[in-house]
Amino acid sequence: MRIKELAKKLSIDYEGEDFEVKGISTLQNASKDEISFLENPKYLKYLPSTKAGAVFIRKEQASMLPKGVNALICENPYLSMAYASKYFAKKLIRDKEFDTKIGKNCTIDPKAHIGVNGEIGDNTTIFAGAFIGDNVKIGKNCVIYPNVTIYNDTIIGDNCRLHAGCVIGSDGFGYAHTKDGKHIKIYHNGNVIIEDDVEIGANTTIDRAVFGSTVIKKGSIIDNLVQIGHNCEVGEYNIIVAQTGLSGSSKLGRNVIMGGQSATAGHLSIGDFATIAARGGVTKSIKGGEVYSGFPLMKHKDWLKLQALLARILKKKG
Amino acid sequence: MRIKELAKKLSIDYEGEDFEVKGISTLQNASKDEISFLENPKYLKYLPSTKAGAVFIRKEQASMLPKGVNALICENPYLSMAYASKYFAKKLIRDKEFDTKIGKNCTIDPKAHIGVNGEIGDNTTIFAGAFIGDNVKIGKNCVIYPNVTIYNDTIIGDNCRLHAGCVIGSDGFGYAHTKDGKHIKIYHNGNVIIEDDVEIGANTTIDRAVFGSTVIKKGSIIDNLVQIGHNCEVGEYNIIVAQTGLSGSSKLGRNVIMGGQSATAGHLSIGDFATIAARGGVTKSIKGGEVYSGFPLMKHKDWLKLQALLARILKKKG
Amino acid sequence: MRIKELAKKLSIDYEGEDFEVKGISTLQNASKDEISFLENPKYLKYLPSTKAGAVFIRKEQASMLPKGVNALICENPYLSMAYASKYFAKKLIRDKEFDTKIGKNCTIDPKAHIGVNGEIGDNTTIFAGAFIGDNVKIGKNCVIYPNVTIYNDTIIGDNCRLHAGCVIGSDGFGYAHTKDGKHIKIYHNGNVIIEDDVEIGANTTIDRAVFGSTVIKKGSIIDNLVQIGHNCEVGEYNIIVAQTGLSGSSKLGRNVIMGGQSATAGHLSIGDFATIAARGGVTKSIKGGEVYSGFPLMKHKDWLKLQALLARILKKKG
Repeated sequence: MRIKELAKKLSIDYEGEDFEVKGISTLQNASKDEISFLENPKYLKYLPSTKAGAVFIRKEQASMLPKGVNALICENPYLSMAYASKYFAKKLIRDKEFDTKIGKNCTIDPKAHIGVNGEIGDNTTIFAGAFIGDNVKIGKNCVIYPNVTIYNDTIIGDNCRLHAGCVIGSDGFGYAHTKDGKHIKIYHNGNVIIEDDVEIGANTTIDRAVFGSTVIKKGSIIDNLVQIGHNCEVGEYNIIVAQTGLSGSSKLGRNVIMGGQSATAGHLSIGDFATIAARGGVTKSIKGGEVYSGFPLMKHKDWLKLQALLARILKKKG
Repeated sequence: MRIKELAKKLSIDYEGEDFEVKGISTLQNASKDEISFLENPKYLKYLPSTKAGAVFIRKEQASMLPKGVNALICENPYLSMAYASKYFAKKLIRDKEFDTKIGKNCTIDPKAHIGVNGEIGDNTTIFAGAFIGDNVKIGKNCVIYPNVTIYNDTIIGDNCRLHAGCVIGSDGFGYAHTKDGKHIKIYHNGNVIIEDDVEIGANTTIDRAVFGSTVIKKGSIIDNLVQIGHNCEVGEYNIIVAQTGLSGSSKLGRNVIMGGQSATAGHLSIGDFATIAARGGVTKSIKGGEVYSGFPLMKHKDWLKLQALLARILKKKG
Repeated sequence: MRIKELAKKLSIDYEGEDFEVKGISTLQNASKDEISFLENPKYLKYLPSTKAGAVFIRKEQASMLPKGVNALICENPYLSMAYASKYFAKKLIRDKEFDTKIGKNCTIDPKAHIGVNGEIGDNTTIFAGAFIGDNVKIGKNCVIYPNVTIYNDTIIGDNCRLHAGCVIGSDGFGYAHTKDGKHIKIYHNGNVIIEDDVEIGANTTIDRAVFGSTVIKKGSIIDNLVQIGHNCEVGEYNIIVAQTGLSGSSKLGRNVIMGGQSATAGHLSIGDFATIAARGGVTKSIKGGEVYSGFPLMKHKDWLKLQALLARILKKKG
């Protein structure tokens, strides 16, 4: 879509040059034929170096745009971006460019659905009821169990096992909100990348990124009924136990352990070799090599002390 | 089924007039051709005005029945209702009255299952592996992703998106219990109603009502792996974050926010514009316009104070 | 596989007699043609009476093996067992011995998948999108709702209802770990047994045992989105409310109630008629007949006192 047409649809007065917009991305990652937005002042630092073709921005901040980057002046840049995202949503069912390429010695049940434009590696098994979307790549020696759903554009490495009912690449839970309390969907045009040697449990859900990719790195193991939000990055060799929830944009280092029913608040990072005990709730970035517990989160040894202290108080006064 | 036959099956001495029973409902909602029950004294207030044809009731309370309402005298009215519910269960697969009507420009994968007696609006897309039960209505411009299951009798509005693996209309978790500890299923003969502009996340589950409807109102957005119990009412424009659980008969006002992994205890109401922070556990009815946290629930600012206080105590004595 | 060949594959010097190994099991349950392992000193007590043909064991403990039991000497017995488990994994899709036997008056949708070598009892209904693996037995009068997945070797009794999207028999979350932090899958060659009169909620997951069986006993009712780990034993007439998680090898007595979002830490037992309130986290074995709450777990009345005490402290000092 041409930017002048887009601006018109969004009732934005646009005075810059016209060009074909290919998509939306962050200030850091947008290229010349993409547009971006500045809502949270925390991201102001990325403004001077953005390569975006144009940026949704408030009037008072527009002067800070670098030379050559056009302004899409609006009251609520995040909301405008949400409205715009719809115009860049890909078709639910893609046009067929070619039949998905199937490797050697694959076993694919005729009751599985295989989309178009994809690639499935050698020796991969796909059970009945599995849904493989369009433009999906799956590596060698994988097992896709029954009733797994893999949305369009997902990329999966070699030697992965996806247990029954897991969902890979569903839309992230991202919305902008109008003044009168309505929720405007942000179309999630990113994807999910799962590296080699990953095992994913039954009925676990991994959301696609809004822009870019949600990534599960090599060798990580994920239990049943886990929720992984959009744009998370799960490091190499993580262990994520059942019913854990990672909010959007959580970044886990390597060999992180998340105990059962633990969670993260999103937009934070966890250092390498950190362990979060069962039910731990990570509310801010933490460094690696330690064991943490509780909600709010504290070092595990402090949590043990606190519980002992509460038990003493209860005994004395309870 | 005639009430005399039903009473006989349940070994109840029934002395009232005979009539054809159409179903079971609450004291408030039962009509003349339905039966009801009085177990919890909290519902005694609805007895004088009930329109039910007959009521399962204890002997000592039978005299309080309004004139013209017959007594089904029994020791355990809730248990008797549970046994009776089986006789009003609809067939798992309904008799075909007509083929489901499909609107214009629908895309329905041949690997989806479409039941009978239903209606699907224009421009709706249904992916492979989705199951649409019998007597189901789906509006216009909806997307039903792969491996979604929609049980019989569900009603869905326009512009809804149901992500992969979600289950709409499964039986609620309602049982009566015998003296020797067995659980007698209460057949759930109600349904689920989802209004317009609702998005439901992957692998989320929404149970059908025991009587009447579980309702998700207009514009609400529900994340992945959420559980919504039977007879809940989710108000307009709610935001329900991943892994939240609403127990049966929770009633949420408009623009309520339930944070990740939060929960309600059921049979309670939450006022308009209330926010429950992540992990909050709502144990009784609360008013709107406030932010709450913790389990047991308190105002969020109190929860912050409590955590600060515990941190101080730990530092001093830990 | 012959044990000498297996030892060679694992780079273990094996000096005992050669024999055909049929599988792997625990020290207590292994038979003469199976192998076992001793990792955790807690299981040393089972060594003198083991009937295993050979045992993965550390050099310094090998002398404690009973006469006639061969040593597979290695540095990390658990890890060696994990590597070995792969060689005993059954084929993902079994060789057909016979078509699954279907009872009288069954309704099986042609869009369901029915594996081989199984048995389905009279009057059982299987909906579209359900996946019934190989070597699966299902009893009479069962309802298997859409998009349920039942893995190979599962055994289900009479009068069971499995709601949409539940997964029975997926691999347990069991791995051994290398020194450099990689996770080696332990192939789960056990199964799941569900006895009569059990109802299982939508999108609930029940993992197969590593050896032996995960068991759900007669009359238990399990709500939606529950996770039951490998080798759990859920007793008769249990009530397990939504979003509860049972870690591996939890053993629940009869008529246990697990409230919503509760959990167990695994390798523990809960006595008959115990009730765990919502969100309770069971961290060690507890006796029956009591109500418990909190995390760490305490008696429910103590939990109430503690909360009252914290409320008082908050009021005074907050």
